[in-house]
Amino acid sequence: MRTTICEMFGVDFPIFAFSHCRDVVAAVTNAGGFGVLGAVAYSPEQLDTELTWIDERVGGRPYGVDVLVPGRIDSSVTDLGTRLADAIPQRHRDFVTHLFGKYGLDAREPLPVSLSAYADEVGRRVTAEGAGGLIDVALRHPIRLIASALGPPPPEMADKARAAGVPVAALVGTVEHARRQVAAGVDVVVAQGTEAGGHTGEISTMVLVPQVVDAVDVPVLAAGGIADGRQMAAALALGAEGVWCGSVWLTTEEAETPPSVRDKMLSAASSDTVRSRCRTGKPARQLRSAWTQEWDEAPESPGALPMPLQLLLAEGAMAGINRAAERGDPGARELAGYFVGQVVGQLNQVKPARRVVHDMIEEFASAVARMRAVTHDDAPAVPGGISFPPEDVEGRETTEV
Amino acid sequence: MRTTICEMFGVDFPIFAFSHCRDVVAAVTNAGGFGVLGAVAYSPEQLDTELTWIDERVGGRPYGVDVLVPGRIDSSVTDLGTRLADAIPQRHRDFVTHLFGKYGLDAREPLPVSLSAYADEVGRRVTAEGAGGLIDVALRHPIRLIASALGPPPPEMADKARAAGVPVAALVGTVEHARRQVAAGVDVVVAQGTEAGGHTGEISTMVLVPQVVDAVDVPVLAAGGIADGRQMAAALALGAEGVWCGSVWLTTEEAETPPSVRDKMLSAASSDTVRSRCRTGKPARQLRSAWTQEWDEAPESPGALPMPLQLLLAEGAMAGINRAAERGDPGARELAGYFVGQVVGQLNQVKPARRVVHDMIEEFASAVARMRAVTHDDAPAVPGGISFPPEDVEGRETTEV
Repeated sequence: MRTTICEMFGVDFPIFAFSHCRDVVAAVTNAGGFGVLGAVAYSPEQLDTELTWIDERVGGRPYGVDVLVPGRIDSSVTDLGTRLADAIPQRHRDFVTHLFGKYGLDAREPLPVSLSAYADEVGRRVTAEGAGGLIDVALRHPIRLIASALGPPPPEMADKARAAGVPVAALVGTVEHARRQVAAGVDVVVAQGTEAGGHTGEISTMVLVPQVVDAVDVPVLAAGGIADGRQMAAALALGAEGVWCGSVWLTTEEAETPPSVRDKMLSAASSDTVRSRCRTGKPARQLRSAWTQEWDEAPESPGALPMPLQLLLAEGAMAGINRAAERGDPGARELAGYFVGQVVGQLNQVKPARRVVHDMIEEFASAVARMRAVTHDDAPAVPGGISFPPEDVEGRETTEV
Repeated sequence: MRTTICEMFGVDFPIFAFSHCRDVVAAVTNAGGFGVLGAVAYSPEQLDTELTWIDERVGGRPYGVDVLVPGRIDSSVTDLGTRLADAIPQRHRDFVTHLFGKYGLDAREPLPVSLSAYADEVGRRVTAEGAGGLIDVALRHPIRLIASALGPPPPEMADKARAAGVPVAALVGTVEHARRQVAAGVDVVVAQGTEAGGHTGEISTMVLVPQVVDAVDVPVLAAGGIADGRQMAAALALGAEGVWCGSVWLTTEEAETPPSVRDKMLSAASSDTVRSRCRTGKPARQLRSAWTQEWDEAPESPGALPMPLQLLLAEGAMAGINRAAERGDPGARELAGYFVGQVVGQLNQVKPARRVVHDMIEEFASAVARMRAVTHDDAPAVPGGISFPPEDVEGRETTEV
C-alpha cells in the first residue's frame, strides 16, 4: 500500500499497533505494520531489555515507543516532593480495602493499604521527569517513532527526538488539541475517537478524523473503533493516512492480557465498556466491571483521585485482583478489568497478531473493491462514474462529477 | 451509484435525509436522494397538508415519513387516561418558571405553567395510538418508506405498511436491537451511532455499523457522524448500503431552524453537544445550552421526567424561549437549543439542500479514488494490488491478497 505514512515509516501497511507487550510489537512490525511499545509499565532498565529483545527479532524493520506524559500534573501531587503514594488519602485506601472485603478476596492477597515502592515508581514514570528517563533509553535503540499519549509532549522530549531524527506522534481527541500539538512540533497526529480504549475524549472517530485532517498539515492516523479491515477502510475514507489500533491486540496469542480479563473481552459486547476516571484519574474507556461500578455508582465511593494518584491506587489494587482472579477467586473476577475500546464486541477469537494484520488488509482490499463497484467504476464514460439527475424543480444547474 | 438500497428505493444516491421540514424533504428527493419527513410535530390533518405539498413537487420521486413511536410508554403516564399535561409534577413546572425568571425572559412571554391542549396533543402523538393516526394519513400518500425512530414499531404499524407495500425502517443503537427489529419484520435497519443528534445509544457509528451489517440480513443504513462525502464513503466502507443524515440539513437554506439556534449551530464545535434526557425524557444528543446545563447540573434541578412528559414540558417551554430569542432576548438565546449531532462542528455555512447532496457525492467519489490509489490500483500483477512481506521470523506462510 502507499500512503504518506507508508513512505515516511517504510512500512507495507499503515497499521500502527499500540501494545504493552513486546511480542505483539515485534509480530506486527514483522507482518508489515508498525509496532509501538507502551513504555509506562517499565523502568528504564526494563525498557532497555524489552527494546533489545525487539531489536533482535525485527531485523531492522521499523517500530516505536509510546510514553504517557501528562501535559499537567496536579500541583498538589508534585509539590509533595517525597513519595507519591503518601499523597493518597486514607479514605480512598479504605474504599479499596472495603471492596476487597465486599468481594471476598482471598486472605492470602495482601490488601493494598501500603502502596509500596512499586506504586511509587510507577507513579514517577508518568511525571515529566520519569518519562524523560524512558525517552533517553528509547533513543539509544533504532526506534522510528516516539508517541505521547496525553497532552503535548514536553519540549525536552520533542527536542531530544528531533536531535535523534525520530518523528514524534501525539494522540488527540479534539481539533484544538491537534492544532496545539502541531504547533508544539509534532510530526504525526493520532486522532482518537471516544470509542477507543484508554484515555479518550468525547468526539467519535467518524466526526473527529475529517476535522483533524482539515486542520493540520501533518499526516493523521485514525484511532478508536478500528479492529477490522472495513474500519481501516473507513478511516482512510475519512482522510487518515493510516490507523492506530490498541484493543485488537489484547486478544491475540502474543498478548499478556490476564486470562480472566481476556475471557471477559472475548465474551463482551460493545456496550460493556465505560469511560471512567476510576482507573487512572482521567477519563479512560475500559471494561465495565465491579471496580468501575463501585467507584462510579456506589454511594460510599470517595470518587476518583487525580492522575497519577488514582493510577497508583488502582494499579496496586489490580495487581492483587488479577493474582486472585487467576487463582479462580470469583469476587476478584468480578473486579478485574482493563482498558479496551468499544470494538471489544468484535473480539471473539484468539488469533496470532500476524493473522490480525493480514485479515485486516484482506478486508480492506474487499471494502475498496466493494466501493469501486458502488460507484459504477467498471462503467466507462463519466469521470468518476457518477452523474446527477437533471434539476427539474428548482431550476438549478446539473452537476456531473 | 448502485447499492441494494438504490435499487430498492429507486434513488440515484443512497442518501436519506431526515427532516421536519417539507422543503428539505422535497429538495433532497429531487436531488437524487430520499427525503424522510419527521411527522411528530404534526397533527394528522397537518401531515396530510405537508405530504400533499411534497407530492406536488417531487413528480413521483421517492420519499418517506418518520414517526416517533416509543416501544414502551411509562405506565404512570398512560394509566392516567386523561390529559398527559396533568401528569407533569408541580416541581418540574416550577423549575421551568424558575429558569424563565433566572434568564430574564421577557414578561410578554407567558410562563408555561398551564401546558394547554397544545402540549397535550403533542404528547398524544408519541403514543402508539397517536402515531397510528399519522401512519394512516401517511399511507394515503405515495410514500415509499415508514421509519420508526424509537424501539420496534408496533405490530399494527408494520402490518398496515406491509398491506400497503411500503417498507418499514427502524433506527437502532445496538446489535441486539437490530436483531429484534428484524425479527419484528423491519425491512431496513438504520444503525445509528452515539454521535448522532436526537435519541442515541452509546456505541459509535464506526463500531456499530459493521456489527449490525454482520448480524442482520436486511440492508443497513449508517447514521451518526455523517455530513460530508468522506463520512459517507466511510459508512459504505463499514458495510452500510447508504447513509441516513439529519443534522446536516438543519443549516440548509430550506430548513426552518430558528435563526438563533441556526447561528449557534454554525459557530458550534463538535464538543458543544451533549447527550441528555432534559429535552424528551430519553437520552438525546443536542446543543449544549443553558437549558441542558441547568437540568443536568444545577443542584435545584428536579431531574428529567420520563418520555413523553419531559418532551411536553420542554417543547412547551422551548416554544416560548424561541419566540423570545427571535426578539433578541439574551437570556432566551442562552436557553435555546435543538437536537444535533457531533457533526455540528462541520456545519459552518448555509447551503441549499441540493448543494449538500451534490457536495457529498463529489467528496464521496474523491474518497473512493483516493482509496484506489492507496491500494496501488493502477499497478498490474497482484490481484487486489497488495502483497504481504515474506514471513521470516515465525515461519508462517506468506499470504497474498
